[in-house]
Amino acid sequence: MSLKKILFIVIDGISDRLIDNKTPLDSARTPNLDYFAKIGINGIMDTIAPGVRPGSDTAHLALLGYNPHECYSGRGPIEAAGSGIELKEGDVAFRANFGTVEGEGSIFDKVVVDRRAGRIDETDELVKALNKIDLSEFGVKVMVRRGTGHRAAVVFRGEGLSDRVTDTDPKKIGSKVKMCKALDENAEKTARIINKFMEEAHRILENHPVNLEREKNGLLKGNAILLRGGGMVKKVESFEERFGLKLAFIAGTTLIKGIGKIIGADVLEVEGVTGNKHTNLKNKFNAALEALNTHDFVLVHIKATDELGHDGDFEGKKSFIEKIDQEIAVLRELDFTEICLVITADHSTPINVKDHTADPVPVIVVHEGVRTDEVDRFSELVAYRGGLCRIRGIDLFNIVLDLTNNTSKFGA
Amino acid sequence: MSLKKILFIVIDGISDRLIDNKTPLDSARTPNLDYFAKIGINGIMDTIAPGVRPGSDTAHLALLGYNPHECYSGRGPIEAAGSGIELKEGDVAFRANFGTVEGEGSIFDKVVVDRRAGRIDETDELVKALNKIDLSEFGVKVMVRRGTGHRAAVVFRGEGLSDRVTDTDPKKIGSKVKMCKALDENAEKTARIINKFMEEAHRILENHPVNLEREKNGLLKGNAILLRGGGMVKKVESFEERFGLKLAFIAGTTLIKGIGKIIGADVLEVEGVTGNKHTNLKNKFNAALEALNTHDFVLVHIKATDELGHDGDFEGKKSFIEKIDQEIAVLRELDFTEICLVITADHSTPINVKDHTADPVPVIVVHEGVRTDEVDRFSELVAYRGGLCRIRGIDLFNIVLDLTNNTSKFGA
Repeated sequence: MSLKKILFIVIDGISDRLIDNKTPLDSARTPNLDYFAKIGINGIMDTIAPGVRPGSDTAHLALLGYNPHECYSGRGPIEAAGSGIELKEGDVAFRANFGTVEGEGSIFDKVVVDRRAGRIDETDELVKALNKIDLSEFGVKVMVRRGTGHRAAVVFRGEGLSDRVTDTDPKKIGSKVKMCKALDENAEKTARIINKFMEEAHRILENHPVNLEREKNGLLKGNAILLRGGGMVKKVESFEERFGLKLAFIAGTTLIKGIGKIIGADVLEVEGVTGNKHTNLKNKFNAALEALNTHDFVLVHIKATDELGHDGDFEGKKSFIEKIDQEIAVLRELDFTEICLVITADHSTPINVKDHTADPVPVIVVHEGVRTDEVDRFSELVAYRGGLCRIRGIDLFNIVLDLTNNTSKFGA
Repeated sequence: MSLKKILFIVIDGISDRLIDNKTPLDSARTPNLDYFAKIGINGIMDTIAPGVRPGSDTAHLALLGYNPHECYSGRGPIEAAGSGIELKEGDVAFRANFGTVEGEGSIFDKVVVDRRAGRIDETDELVKALNKIDLSEFGVKVMVRRGTGHRAAVVFRGEGLSDRVTDTDPKKIGSKVKMCKALDENAEKTARIINKFMEEAHRILENHPVNLEREKNGLLKGNAILLRGGGMVKKVESFEERFGLKLAFIAGTTLIKGIGKIIGADVLEVEGVTGNKHTNLKNKFNAALEALNTHDFVLVHIKATDELGHDGDFEGKKSFIEKIDQEIAVLRELDFTEICLVITADHSTPINVKDHTADPVPVIVVHEGVRTDEVDRFSELVAYRGGLCRIRGIDLFNIVLDLTNNTSKFGA
C-alpha cells in the first residue's frame, strides 16, 4: 500500500450557533465547499471533547494527534516558539507587552498608564538591550524576542526554574506593576529572578535612546515589559518522530506558528499571509499545493473567520467565508487518489457569543474510496447527518491516517 | 457573557425496547414534549457508557458531571443520606428492613418469616430504641433513621470501619438471618460490631411495646433489622464547590434525594410529591419554576415511568407519559434566552424486560441558539437522528455548561 499525503484546511471559528435561525456559514454561497461535502464523507466534531471549549492552540494539538491535557503548558511557550525562539525543555516562557509606567520608586511602585506604550512598534533596539540583562548570578539566561507591534516573548533558561509564578502584568490601566510571586516553595528562586529582570528592564528602557526620542515627540515610552501567561516548556515528541510524517504549517498568527514549532513542523513563510481578513488566500492555497511536494502532511490555518466571530460581525464573517470558497476552488484539481483533503475548524466562534464555544464543528474528508453520504453542503447545521457521525479531533486524525495507509494493524 | 440557568427534567426509565413494533413513549400522544423536540436539539444518550446498565443513582451522578466509577460507594450511603442522616466520610451505611424472625437461640439461629414484618409502618418508637444501642466499647456510634413503611437506614460511625463486610439480610423467606462476615482482615472489627448490633437490636425489638401490641392484634412483629447494601461514605466535592452552581433537587424517592444530599443539593420538599404515579406533577413543575429564582441548576425527577416499566404495564406507562405531557406544558412559557431546558431519562426500563437496560435514552436540549434539527417528536425511536447524535451523560452535562456559559476556555 502506498502512503498518501494529507492536507488539512483549518478555518478558525467558522461555525456558529443559530442566530435568527441562520448562521454565517449556512447562509453563505459556497459552491466549492459544497462540492467537497458532496464528494466527501461528512461529520460533526468535538475537537477536544463534547462541551469542552477549545483554545485554538489546544484544538490544533488535538487535531494533530496530541493530547492537549498532556502536552499543553500555557500560552507563553507557544507564543515564544511562534516568535522564533528555539525552546528547550525546562525553559519558562512568557508573553510580554511593552507598556508605559509612571511614578516614583521601584518598578513595582509605578502605575501602568498604557499596556501597549501607545502601540509602539520600534522595539528592535529595546529588545536587543533587554537581551543583555545579566542574570548569571542565578545561573540563568534571558531571551527576548519581539512580536508584532508592542508584543514580545520572554524566555528564562537555566536549572531549577518553575512556572508556578504569577504574572507581572496587572492587565489594568491605573494599577501598579505586580511583583512576581511564587505559588509554591520550589518557585521562589524563579520569582526572584523575574523580579530582578523586571527592575533591570525598567532601568534600561527608561533612558533608552528610542524611548527618549519618543518622549521628545510626545509619544508614550515603552519603559516596562509586562509578563503574563508563563509556562514551562515540556518535552514534546516531534510529529515526524511520532508519526513518521514530515509536517508543514502555513499560518499567519504567532499562536498557530508556535504550535507548529513546538511539534517540529516546518513553518513556511508565505507572502501576504497576515492572520487577518486581508490575508492572501490564493498564496496560501498555492503554497499548500507546493508544500505537498516536499511534505507528507500540510496544515493551512485561516484566522479571519474567528476574528469576525469575536467581533460579532455576521455579514463580514459570511462574506469572508465566500471569499475562502472562491479561492479554495484551486483544490478541486487535487488528485484524491493521492491526497486526502480535510476541511474543518478548530472550534466555533458564534456571532452571538463573540468567543469560542464548544459547539461542534463540521468536517469534510475527501479521499478516494471514502463512503460518501447524503450531506451535499458545508454547514454546521447539516454536517451531523454525515457518515462520520459525531467524532473527536483525535478520531479525525486517526481516521485520516488510516485512509492514507499511514497506520498499521493492531493484531493479526 | 451572562450565565444562564439550567433545568433538567429526568423521567426515570421512560424509554423502551420495541414490543410489537411500538413503545409506550413512541405511541403516547405528547404534543408538548414534541414541541420541545421541535424547538430544541435532540440526541440519543448512554448515561454512563454504551451497554452499561445504569442504576438511577449512578445515572444521576453521571448526568451531573460526576464519574460514578469514582464516587459511587453503593446504595447504603445514598439511602441513608436520602433518609436525612448527615453523613461523614468514613461512615459505613446500610439500607435496612424491619423483618420478622422466628425460632430459638441467637438472632443468627432464627429464620426470616417476613422480610417486611407484615408491611409494618409504626416504626418511630422502634427506631428511637435502636438509636440507644451502645457500641462505645468499639468506639463506634450507631444512627438509625426510618424510611417509608418497613424501610430504614443504619449508619455506623467511628475510627477504622470498613465496608468489606457481607449483608445480614438473607433476602429469602425461610432462610436464617446471616451473620455479618469480613471480606478482608481490615473488616473484622466492623463485622463484630455489626453482629453485636444485630443481637442487641433483636433483644430490644422482640419485647418492645410496639411489637407486643402488634402480636396482640395478630400482626407480625418487626423483631429484627436486616442490613444490606453496605458502603463506606466517600468524600464527594459538592456541586457548588465543583461547578460554582447552586443546585436544587425536586424528587419523591429516597434514592434520588440521597444522590442530591450527597452532592450538596438543596433537596426541596414539595407537597403531594410521592415518587409514584399518584405524584402531583403540577406541584413539581411549579416548584421547579420557583426554584429557578433561587438556584442555578434545578433537577426534577419523575419516578412512576420506571415503576410501570418494572411492572411491565405498557398502557399504564403510556398513559402516565401522557399525563406528564399535559403538565409539562407549563414549561413552554420559560424564557429560553435565560434558561436551558433538558428533557431526558436516567435509563430505559423496557416493558418486556421489567428492569433497567442500557438501551440509550432520548434527550432534548432547548436553549437560544441551539442548532435545531429534523427531529420533531420525543421518542427513543427517532432521537438518534438529532443534531447531538449519540452522546454520554457526562457529554450532555458539559454541553449544557457550555451553552449556558458556565464553563471556560481550555487554552487560548
